Formats: sequence, C-alpha cells, structure tokens
Amino acid sequence: MDELALARATADAMTREDRCSAWLGMRLEEVRQGYARVSMTVGENMVNGHDLCHGGMIFTLADTTFAYACNSHNQRAVAAGCAIEFLAPAHLGDVLSAEGIEVARIGRSGVYDMKVTNHNGQLIALFRGKAATIKGKLVGEEA
Amino acid sequence: MDELALARATADAMTREDRCSAWLGMRLEEVRQGYARVSMTVGENMVNGHDLCHGGMIFTLADTTFAYACNSHNQRAVAAGCAIEFLAPAHLGDVLSAEGIEVARIGRSGVYDMKVTNHNGQLIALFRGKAATIKGKLVGEEA
Amino acid sequence: MDELALARATADAMTREDRCSAWLGMRLEEVRQGYARVSMTVGENMVNGHDLCHGGMIFTLADTTFAYACNSHNQRAVAAGCAIEFLAPAHLGDVLSAEGIEVARIGRSGVYDMKVTNHNGQLIALFRGKAATIKGKLVGEEA
Amino acid sequence: MDELALARATADAMTREDRCSAWLGMRLEEVRQGYARVSMTVGENMVNGHDLCHGGMIFTLADTTFAYACNSHNQRAVAAGCAIEFLAPAHLGDVLSAEGIEVARIGRSGVYDMKVTNHNGQLIALFRGKAATIKGKLVGEEA
Repeated sequence: MDELALARATADAMTREDRCSAWLGMRLEEVRQGYARVSMTVGENMVNGHDLCHGGMIFTLADTTFAYACNSHNQRAVAAGCAIEFLAPAHLGDVLSAEGIEVARIGRSGVYDMKVTNHNGQLIALFRGKAATIKGKLVGEEA
Repeated sequence: MDELALARATADAMTREDRCSAWLGMRLEEVRQGYARVSMTVGENMVNGHDLCHGGMIFTLADTTFAYACNSHNQRAVAAGCAIEFLAPAHLGDVLSAEGIEVARIGRSGVYDMKVTNHNGQLIALFRGKAATIKGKLVGEEA
Repeated sequence: MDELALARATADAMTREDRCSAWLGMRLEEVRQGYARVSMTVGENMVNGHDLCHGGMIFTLADTTFAYACNSHNQRAVAAGCAIEFLAPAHLGDVLSAEGIEVARIGRSGVYDMKVTNHNGQLIALFRGKAATIKGKLVGEEA
Repeated sequence: MDELALARATADAMTREDRCSAWLGMRLEEVRQGYARVSMTVGENMVNGHDLCHGGMIFTLADTTFAYACNSHNQRAVAAGCAIEFLAPAHLGDVLSAEGIEVARIGRSGVYDMKVTNHNGQLIALFRGKAATIKGKLVGEEA
C-alpha cells in the first residue's frame, strides 16, 4: 500500500469509529500523509440566540481534522494539548472548513496547524495541536 | 442587585440563549462573580467506538464554563483564545465537572482557568481562556 | 533526606549549572516539592529605549522558576511547551518575582503555573508550562 | 515610501531602541511587511553546565522576531500572549535563526508564527504570538 492509500485507510478506520464527528455532520474532504481537510455546516443546535456558533463546535471541527492528520502515518496518536485563537464569529448555516497540516514530527511528538475558514474564505480560527504517538496502528496487523 | 444576584442574572440570560450547551446536556451548578461550575454527562454521541469522549466535547464543557465566568460581571465578554491540556481520557457515562476561576482582569482583558474532573475527582483537562470585553451588558438597560 | 531537603538539593544542583539565570541576576527565594519562587531585577540590558522590559526576559524568569519547580522531585524534567500572557509592562529597576506551582503531575507529564508580579504586587504575566520527565536524577546515585 | 522601505524604516527604529536584543547579539537578517528573520549565536552566558541553551534565550530570539514582524506595518503593536513548543535542544555555539510570518491580521489583533532553526536547518522551536495594536507609529509624524 502506498502512502496515500495508507493515509486514506487510516482515515476510513477513524471515520467508522468517530461517532461524535458523524453526529455533528462532519465530512472528510481530503486526507494524505500529514494533511487533512474536514467540513461542517453550522446547525441549529450549534448556535446561541443570536445565531452565533459556539466556540466549542469550531474547536471540535479543528480537533477532528487534527486527529485525521496526526494519525495519517498509521501510528496511533492522541492530542496532548491544543490552542485556538478565535478571529471571527461563525453563524448559523455557515459551511466551515478546517485544513490541517503537519508542521513538525520529532520522536513521539508532532505539531499540527489547523486553519478554519467559512464558505466565503474568511478566516474564523487558528488551532495548533500537539500530538503524542501511542502504541498501536489503525490498519494492518495490529489494528 | 448585589454581586451574587447580578452574576446569577447574567448566567440566567446566557442559559436562555445558549442552545448548544443545552443540547449537550450541560447543567450550571454554581455561579458567582468570576466563578462558574458546570457539569455534563458523556453521552453516546460524544464518544468513539472505544467509548472514549471526543476532546472537542471536553473543550466545549470548559468553554461554556469560561463564558459563564467571564460574563459574570454583567459586561459582555468573548473568548479571544483558549488552550487546553488533555491529561486523562473521559469515558461514556462519566459525569464531568468544569470549575472556572478568574485569574486576572485588567482593562478589557481577562484570564480564566478551568479544571475538568470526572465524578471520581480525577483530573481530565486543564483549560486557560483569554477573554476580551465587548460593548453591551447581559441584564439591565442595555440587555 | 526528607522531601524538602531533597527539593533544596535539586535546586542547588540546578543553580550551580544554570549560568544563564545567574548571568541575568536571578535569585532563588524559595523552593519545595512542586513549588519555586525566583526574583530578578530588571537591569539596563533588559529594556528598550522607553525603559520597558523585553518580554523575553520576563519569560526567562518564569521559565527558570518552572525548571526549579518541575525538577523538585529529583526526577529530571524538561520544558515541552510554554504559554505566556503579558498583562502589564515591567520597567527598568522593577524587582520581579515569579511564583510557580504544580497543577498536575500524571505519568511523565506535568503542568505548572507561574505568576510574575512586580515589587508592588502588580500582576505582570501568567505562564503555563508543560514538562516531560526524562531519564536521570539531579542528586544521588545517578547525578 | 513604498511598503518595503517602510517596513525597513520601522525595523531600523526598533533596532535603535531595543538594547536587550543588541545585548544578546541578535542580527536582523531580513524584514518586509508581515515578515522578519533574525539570527543569534548561542553564547557562553546562554547555556547551562551541559552547554544546553536556556529556553528563555530561544524564546527571546523568537519574540524579537515577532516584534519586528508585527510592527512592520508602522502601526505600533505589542505582544498579548505567546506560546512556544520546544522540539530539540540548542547548544553552545549554535547559530539560531528565527523566521516569522504573519498568519492573520484582523482589526487590532494579529497572529504570527515563528520557526527557530539551527545552522544545520534543524527545527528547534515553534512560537505563535498574538499581537495587539496600540496607538502610535514607529516612523513618520507620530514617531
């Protein structure tokens, strides 16, 4: 299996398991080694009375994207810590897209940067995640 | 209205508006000036196939707690940025509690620390939020 | 050796080695398990033309305090990541004090919070550090 | 004055004022709007007894780079908060280089990413800085 096929297989394994992201309507748009892009529409349950999206929903979209990206090498990894900067509000009906890239991967640690934009391309949030690899693979003999 | 009554009134106004936190089953347990405590049970939609809670749900609980705490002075405030450290996993059925305190409030900026524990008192996550006040009040003439 | 004596012995070992903190004039004021307090006077080389202290010097003071606190168990630990919030400027001649406490210590990870104040007790900065233990001790057989 | 000349003029004004960065031997290698690159050699006063560079010195290099980048529009800006991930140690004699780019600039807020590498191109640290603009310019009528 080449790198891209492997990244897709790890993503398939994650998608099957991640009930929460499915519940929130997330769609994996693209994945390759060290990269993922996920979209989500801001629904009625994600907003407040002013139709503003809860910051936790924006975080969750970026966190799922982070999980796809940092597991794309087929070495299980978990989030150790994350930081998010909220730059503009998201609204009911917005289609948000989170794009995540691998910035560093050294030993058991990885750093990933996610950018969340709306359907107009406006920057909504920046998210930096620190991953730590743990034992186990997502696909193959150890899965 | 004294400080405690005012803090409770701002919290009531927020609870009425925050559909997302209600949807996730959050319960405001306690609020006073610069302080809030919120609980949430990890439900079936919040976990993956191994019954582990999505980090975004833990973040969202802490973020809602942060919002109650930083708006408790009846001066509207929004999250500018947040950082979370994940220390132990949360599982299906866990009753999580987030306790938030005000660490600093200088000019238009505030720093708040949230601690998320499970029903056994185990520490699950630490969350630090940076708030910025904006125009408007939650209760009273401008509400 | 009891816990306090051990913490002091680790601190002595660190002080002997840490040329940079000595060069910047830092003074260890107090240390015990999971706690340290360090002071530093803002000197002429630490400021700009408006006599404002460089943020890097404030960070360095907090980072040294963090190192004392997270090594106080006599298990070598290093900084994995740190976040600092700058709340008020420090000026030439200010005597800054950083107080560090252990917030969590789980497995190989630790989280420490440092508070930097000036000689008037004004809050200057908040620093949160994530430590990871590595092999080796500071004092005793392996030192 | 065009954008590049203006960025250089703001940098010149900062270099003249920033005694601390000069004291640490920092050299501005390149600057343009929303970008700066600064280098520094790890000297004897920056290390411990194992010739490992103090994390505070690495932070200070990145923080100075951040200051050049976020002031390059000739609108005074200060650091509100910064986060650094330490990925590999730096040693005595290493020539460190910090490259900073503007990731977002919305209203009075800006987010900047600095990457610190050594002379072999090895990644040493990642630094994300949040800037807030304040009144005043660095060059021109208000300087």
